[in-house]
Amino acid sequence: MADRVVLAYSGGLDTSVAIPYLAEKMGAEVIAVAVDVGQGGEDMEVIRKRALDCGAVEAVVVDAREEFARDFCFPALRANALYMDRYPLVSALSRPLIVKHLAEAARKYKGTHVAHGCTGKGNDQVRFEAGLAALNPDLKVVAPARDFAWTRDKAIAFAEEKGLPIDVTKKSPYSIDQNLWGRAVETGFLEDIWNAPTEELYAYTSDPSVPREPDEVVITFSEGVPVALDGRELSPYELIAELNRRAGAQGVGRLDMVEDRLVGIKSREVYEAPAAIALITAHMELENVTVERDLARFKRTVDQRWGELVYDGLWYSPLKRALDAFIAETQRHVSGDIRMVLHGGRAVVTGRRSEDSLYDYSLATYDSGDAFDQSLAKGFVQLWSLPSKIAAARDARRS
Amino acid sequence: MADRVVLAYSGGLDTSVAIPYLAEKMGAEVIAVAVDVGQGGEDMEVIRKRALDCGAVEAVVVDAREEFARDFCFPALRANALYMDRYPLVSALSRPLIVKHLAEAARKYKGTHVAHGCTGKGNDQVRFEAGLAALNPDLKVVAPARDFAWTRDKAIAFAEEKGLPIDVTKKSPYSIDQNLWGRAVETGFLEDIWNAPTEELYAYTSDPSVPREPDEVVITFSEGVPVALDGRELSPYELIAELNRRAGAQGVGRLDMVEDRLVGIKSREVYEAPAAIALITAHMELENVTVERDLARFKRTVDQRWGELVYDGLWYSPLKRALDAFIAETQRHVSGDIRMVLHGGRAVVTGRRSEDSLYDYSLATYDSGDAFDQSLAKGFVQLWSLPSKIAAARDARRS
Amino acid sequence: MADRVVLAYSGGLDTSVAIPYLAEKMGAEVIAVAVDVGQGGEDMEVIRKRALDCGAVEAVVVDAREEFARDFCFPALRANALYMDRYPLVSALSRPLIVKHLAEAARKYKGTHVAHGCTGKGNDQVRFEAGLAALNPDLKVVAPARDFAWTRDKAIAFAEEKGLPIDVTKKSPYSIDQNLWGRAVETGFLEDIWNAPTEELYAYTSDPSVPREPDEVVITFSEGVPVALDGRELSPYELIAELNRRAGAQGVGRLDMVEDRLVGIKSREVYEAPAAIALITAHMELENVTVERDLARFKRTVDQRWGELVYDGLWYSPLKRALDAFIAETQRHVSGDIRMVLHGGRAVVTGRRSEDSLYDYSLATYDSGDAFDQSLAKGFVQLWSLPSKIAAARDARRS
Amino acid sequence: MADRVVLAYSGGLDTSVAIPYLAEKMGAEVIAVAVDVGQGGEDMEVIRKRALDCGAVEAVVVDAREEFARDFCFPALRANALYMDRYPLVSALSRPLIVKHLAEAARKYKGTHVAHGCTGKGNDQVRFEAGLAALNPDLKVVAPARDFAWTRDKAIAFAEEKGLPIDVTKKSPYSIDQNLWGRAVETGFLEDIWNAPTEELYAYTSDPSVPREPDEVVITFSEGVPVALDGRELSPYELIAELNRRAGAQGVGRLDMVEDRLVGIKSREVYEAPAAIALITAHMELENVTVERDLARFKRTVDQRWGELVYDGLWYSPLKRALDAFIAETQRHVSGDIRMVLHGGRAVVTGRRSEDSLYDYSLATYDSGDAFDQSLAKGFVQLWSLPSKIAAARDARRS
Repeated sequence: MADRVVLAYSGGLDTSVAIPYLAEKMGAEVIAVAVDVGQGGEDMEVIRKRALDCGAVEAVVVDAREEFARDFCFPALRANALYMDRYPLVSALSRPLIVKHLAEAARKYKGTHVAHGCTGKGNDQVRFEAGLAALNPDLKVVAPARDFAWTRDKAIAFAEEKGLPIDVTKKSPYSIDQNLWGRAVETGFLEDIWNAPTEELYAYTSDPSVPREPDEVVITFSEGVPVALDGRELSPYELIAELNRRAGAQGVGRLDMVEDRLVGIKSREVYEAPAAIALITAHMELENVTVERDLARFKRTVDQRWGELVYDGLWYSPLKRALDAFIAETQRHVSGDIRMVLHGGRAVVTGRRSEDSLYDYSLATYDSGDAFDQSLAKGFVQLWSLPSKIAAARDARRS
Repeated sequence: MADRVVLAYSGGLDTSVAIPYLAEKMGAEVIAVAVDVGQGGEDMEVIRKRALDCGAVEAVVVDAREEFARDFCFPALRANALYMDRYPLVSALSRPLIVKHLAEAARKYKGTHVAHGCTGKGNDQVRFEAGLAALNPDLKVVAPARDFAWTRDKAIAFAEEKGLPIDVTKKSPYSIDQNLWGRAVETGFLEDIWNAPTEELYAYTSDPSVPREPDEVVITFSEGVPVALDGRELSPYELIAELNRRAGAQGVGRLDMVEDRLVGIKSREVYEAPAAIALITAHMELENVTVERDLARFKRTVDQRWGELVYDGLWYSPLKRALDAFIAETQRHVSGDIRMVLHGGRAVVTGRRSEDSLYDYSLATYDSGDAFDQSLAKGFVQLWSLPSKIAAARDARRS
Repeated sequence: MADRVVLAYSGGLDTSVAIPYLAEKMGAEVIAVAVDVGQGGEDMEVIRKRALDCGAVEAVVVDAREEFARDFCFPALRANALYMDRYPLVSALSRPLIVKHLAEAARKYKGTHVAHGCTGKGNDQVRFEAGLAALNPDLKVVAPARDFAWTRDKAIAFAEEKGLPIDVTKKSPYSIDQNLWGRAVETGFLEDIWNAPTEELYAYTSDPSVPREPDEVVITFSEGVPVALDGRELSPYELIAELNRRAGAQGVGRLDMVEDRLVGIKSREVYEAPAAIALITAHMELENVTVERDLARFKRTVDQRWGELVYDGLWYSPLKRALDAFIAETQRHVSGDIRMVLHGGRAVVTGRRSEDSLYDYSLATYDSGDAFDQSLAKGFVQLWSLPSKIAAARDARRS
Repeated sequence: MADRVVLAYSGGLDTSVAIPYLAEKMGAEVIAVAVDVGQGGEDMEVIRKRALDCGAVEAVVVDAREEFARDFCFPALRANALYMDRYPLVSALSRPLIVKHLAEAARKYKGTHVAHGCTGKGNDQVRFEAGLAALNPDLKVVAPARDFAWTRDKAIAFAEEKGLPIDVTKKSPYSIDQNLWGRAVETGFLEDIWNAPTEELYAYTSDPSVPREPDEVVITFSEGVPVALDGRELSPYELIAELNRRAGAQGVGRLDMVEDRLVGIKSREVYEAPAAIALITAHMELENVTVERDLARFKRTVDQRWGELVYDGLWYSPLKRALDAFIAETQRHVSGDIRMVLHGGRAVVTGRRSEDSLYDYSLATYDSGDAFDQSLAKGFVQLWSLPSKIAAARDARRS
């Protein structure tokens, strides 16, 4: 029986050409799988037909937008996931979801291989292959761009030779990946890291420097997850999409950074993530109000490791599951409202209220109602500083 | 011989009244020490005379502005010190410097006690007393506000009774502390954490929402420390002061947060730190370019601990010294230029260049000059994901 | 109505005398609560009668041995809890359990205060009071030894004056605390840290240097918890008690160390914990076999923090709960058998077998059945070392 | 000009055969480099001659024993380096030293390649190649066992065919690596992890279960490094060698564990490291006496990372250097004497004394000279537990 290759299909030139190419090169049947993670663009049905037109024996489209929001974006939010303290893991979140649907399609359609379009110098190959290794270790992986040194020029020549129904003239100077949680742009003139980004790079955000009226939003969280905007309950996908519009309109969420890839090189990336940045900012402040100090301090270490792990492609790993268990416990009381102003590229918290607040006015106030017993402080201060004091006396004696 | 109390003197009502109060209550001679950490306001000579007028036997003023910038602000910058990922430790940095000068004055003037004006519910008492415990453990500490339940109303009554040369009518509804690295505002209507800050709270920054022309600045760093703005070399104090003006004029560096105090309560704080936020943003990006990945990841843990430790008053502690040694080693190559746009409350990096860059165009580019051998990636990916893969196979077998 | 003091009662001199002392000093009724955590010694019923004879209005004894083993010792085992890498938290584990029963008794008997016999320089005061603050913050705490400067000599004089039914002649030169998980000895000649411990200090362990036949035991774990010895299922209490006997007979589990107390001083402690040390040794090795590498590495950080937190009295804290959630997830596959030899003070693992093993003979072997594809290694090694290589080239260029 | 291969030469079968094999296969000249890291066995001069007899154009022997002790073993001791809390990094320490001498030989003899005998499934290939990448990134690496699938059987056949002067009949069923810091044994019947080690595996240690007289030793440390045994000053190499003899004679330092290799698999290893285990035990206790609490707690994290990093082959990495800077600062006061008893497989500290001690008898004692002010404790305890208390009240209110 022929090999059956389950291809991660985007509808674009490279993966469209890959259908006949893999069929020919491997003598295989190709099943194309396209997953909607909120990337926008073409209708999924159009994409499905194109796959069939290019020779796929099956073409599957999956509307995973709510699943992506609920099971991938929101866990990242609960972890305040910002790789290198900045990047909200846009592509790193969609890959494990796509992998899950590839593995499911392989099960359903008896696939023997999985193919993806990633190159050998990026992170996404790791995310695809590490995910597949965990979800279905028996599947073999084919990466034409990496393993067969397949390039865009070769793809165009092949498409023309075969008369494939693809427009080969559209060409962006950039490499772009986008989904509900954000948008990543790289290559082109950005490879010179002294060059500033230009306005045409951006699609999710308006220019923050253009004067406009501020927008104010109240985000309601329940156990670490946003459930309503301005009191209106929304599904996970709807809420993020709506906030992308509102925060994007104010220029919120642009990032420009040099980043450490898993494969050992530094690259320059420009991101837009309006909802992600607004939500993480709000969530962090709600944690400030509702999470106890020692827990909050340790959670920073957990959050950092979570972000690195997911960036590094290990979504389906034992450590990820254990970090999630930790985080779930921390979020039990992260409920309440955060009021933010969205304006001029900034998402600024201006108010917070919560039934679960640990902020205690009567302890914090300098007014007359003060419930804090200051006489306790002297003993605290002296024992708190005792180890340093003993060490300082030793140092003085011994120097 | 009478006790001699070295008083941390600000020139304000509380510490002015403390001079005759301590003299009377303790039968002691009071030496007033005022330290200029860039807080602005009154002339230091005026402050010195006031101390004498209030009955101090000695009054010392110290211009510590360059020392503060070089030995306290810059180390914080090298640690990217942001307590709870946000607050650049404004007051936490000046306290150990003031303590150092108090201990020196005590040595010079044979002080037996040190007095400070902090209450028993804040962090600064810890910073004063932990610092003194380390620098001169023999000094006794007096904190009238905390230990004698001394209040503002009592201070005013005492000042009027004694006819002290102090204006008792000036009264801010807020508790304010400021220095070169920033400005902190608390209490008043801010104690209701749902209330938004109002424009009158701010002194270092203009309203970021007012339209104005952007400012662009190139900051030159040498081994983690900024040495020039737009190619013009400046002393540490001058550089920070200049950047406070320029970034402050664009509304950069406003913060509003609920914060975990060391004494175990949460408080609401509003900060302004224009230069600090701009410099930390620039410094972090220069580290992205010049610091190796594993080192950068571990440094986040060190930076977080550094910030907590200094916030918690342990500047003069063995752990602080060891963290500093780690950080010093990391900064050897953090040299180069960062170009930033200051505008609308944002300080945004738009370019970076460095002789010490680890960003390698020939490895990163997708252009034809590519020096990265993609054939290595397959083996890397497979061994990278092998532990997860083995664990997933076990889980599947055992579930 | 009179105050009602719930007293943590051991049956010994100090807490016996505390009954009439607190009644007299506070005009209060005293409820004595004695908790059996496997400390051995007197019959609990005898202790109960003594409390009544000393004037307690109620005397409660709780057999908490299985609860202690299951809910306090086993969680510590799952965390491999060794404070400062050595001390298995003997007293730190029993205190939160005792506190729980004190809080329950206070609820039942309408207690207004809780009293304990701890001094002001040890850790146990923190464990009692931090626990009570979490479980019932309304209860007031009385610590006669600390708050009333109550000493042993005063206690004896008071006992003789009142004719209390207590033998005041028994006197150990040491301060001792013991329970199922181990035994702690301090003070006396041990306060000179150059002095070696002497044989008479020990009660749970035989002299390891005496020649005797080795003992071999197979410990069966299920999800991180031991469930059988040599194939015989035992309750948590029985299993630990049995292993205390067998490992103790071989001199296993003696510790002698200088330790950092929470109150800021260093103290010298001698411990015996035969079952605890044997179990932790076995558990760590079973984790080596069944826990994935990245998870195991991060768990060390979690385990360390867990041990510090519990040592520091914060058993009932939000961070403890979140660390427990992490650890629970890690233990899902820590099941299987560990064979150990107990002999000459050593507990040495000699074999391990597990259905959940991640050790894969076919990958590890150098024999002909080898399933490991060595050709993958070259790419792995080169990308693994790429960041260091790039940094080294930079360093060479810039030095 | 011909390629010149610098070969890491042990004198054994595999690397001896590699000389003519590489010469033939690559048309290259082979320079053999043998480094004495205290592995014992044959005379280095004999080894040198054998290399020449096998066809090497140059043969270099380096006595690196003192260098190894001073620059590799002692830094590991200062880091208390125990991978997975157990393994003192025996082979992981010698590899970077060997690499350094290979790189030096390549410079001197104009080598174009470096060759090593490691397989593709172990850690040592990474240590060799990551080290070379850092020290001389221009050198190409050849690993015949991995890259040419070279096996022992092939080596024997080749040796017989070429009539090489090597005894091909000696054959250990185990794979063994040894040096001054310890000895590692793997493969053979140990690959079944339920099998117990047998006595014949061991060469550095006597059977600990045989009754014999205990040995007592006083180890003097200066800034974290041992400088004398029983008051007699010794060079680094001499001191470790002497302690290997004395601790080995008492059966100290045997380890048997399942370990996580960098290449993603678990393997079973048996180690002997008598001096290493005795010295680390002594050093940890001296740190307990001389290192301040917060510093000691953070150092555990640093030590763990140091051990992982060196195990993982990244000795010559920026993070390693920064961790070393941290550790160097921590060791400034780790000076003094540790008295140990070596007996029955155990190295037990029985006394410690130090001019730099932070243990303060007058604070620790329960005797009358007590200098600790217990009245401070109440305030400390209450503020220490305040965050947990506030959180517990919230939890009660909200549950």
